Amino acid sequence: MGAATDTGAIDALIDLMARLPGLGPRSARRAVLHLVKHRGRQLAPLAEAMRTVADTARECLNCGNIGTADLCPICQNNARANGQICVVGDVADLWAMERSGVFKGRYHVLGGTLSALDDIGPEELRIPKLLDRVVSEHVSEVVLALNATVDGQTTAFYIAEQLGEGVEVTSLAQGVPIGGELDYLDDGTITAALKARRKF
Amino acid sequence: MGAATDTGAIDALIDLMARLPGLGPRSARRAVLHLVKHRGRQLAPLAEAMRTVADTARECLNCGNIGTADLCPICQNNARANGQICVVGDVADLWAMERSGVFKGRYHVLGGTLSALDDIGPEELRIPKLLDRVVSEHVSEVVLALNATVDGQTTAFYIAEQLGEGVEVTSLAQGVPIGGELDYLDDGTITAALKARRKF
Ligand SMILES: [Zn+2]
Ligand SMILES: [Zn+2]
Repeated sequence: MGAATDTGAIDALIDLMARLPGLGPRSARRAVLHLVKHRGRQLAPLAEAMRTVADTARECLNCGNIGTADLCPICQNNARANGQICVVGDVADLWAMERSGVFKGRYHVLGGTLSALDDIGPEELRIPKLLDRVVSEHVSEVVLALNATVDGQTTAFYIAEQLGEGVEVTSLAQGVPIGGELDYLDDGTITAALKARRKF
Repeated sequence: MGAATDTGAIDALIDLMARLPGLGPRSARRAVLHLVKHRGRQLAPLAEAMRTVADTARECLNCGNIGTADLCPICQNNARANGQICVVGDVADLWAMERSGVFKGRYHVLGGTLSALDDIGPEELRIPKLLDRVVSEHVSEVVLALNATVDGQTTAFYIAEQLGEGVEVTSLAQGVPIGGELDYLDDGTITAALKARRKF
């Protein structure tokens, strides 16, 4: 835009929107135009919602999920303290698992996968915290729900090795395609994969 | 999300984002997750930019462009009062014209096209205002830059008829887009391009 519109506030908004994943300059312009047209009903509420999330969102100190308190709703929910922890790479994967509704335990969000290339080691991934939780929360089963990628499986092997013999380690099996990322899978596939989980 | 995360503010933000054109639930989740991760550097500034635009954006009283004052920067710019008005359907079309940098006059944004189906008549489209401006701004040429669709061309014919003989009425040439491959063009475009052929 720039010289095109000369309206600083709108240009600034387009630039910020264009940085979102999945949007580019063109879709950012379309979204902003739509928001300006519906500024009372959509733009003002969106600004308010963003402000609220910016002020309140934080990572759960226990599991790495996103919430609005030191402990996320799942970690606060005693009904979910059933001795199972599902290890996921990212919060998007946790959300995908929750949408399937089939897992009733708690989660541990690694925040990525081990990667020699990107110099991401266990300390970057909340793996020490996971090992602590297995003891302190009397965990009997760790379900590894990591992406079926090389890095995901490397991470799964590393975690299984660290956990040792004292806890059952399982992983999603049937239904996860090679190279597939959890966040792209439909609910049914995730449900089938969890039900058919096998010893790692 | 709902029961999935139980974090009302984040769910509310995802729902609002999912209503933007070009985004769906999945891309809204990805965008919000990205924003939460970068909440200091991106989410807070985005909330602020949206608030500013929600508070200041308005339609130009003269041409229908979007700006932050009663008159948009183009209508305020006396260098652009050269007797030419380019008529576009939407602000997005005005932005597209401005990016090309080739038009130096002023604009008139109709806010749509005539449509019997959607019951959109001349009064809904700022056409009376256009006719006023042609007189009050001593306009010598009206460039019709409307979509090459049935509704766009119906609207162009209607405006040309209303303007009558006192002003020159032109329209964007139809033809093969720069870089366009004939094999990918529809028949109508090829027909128009052949009819408008010129000496090489
Ligand atoms: Zn938690
Ligand atoms: Zn204007």
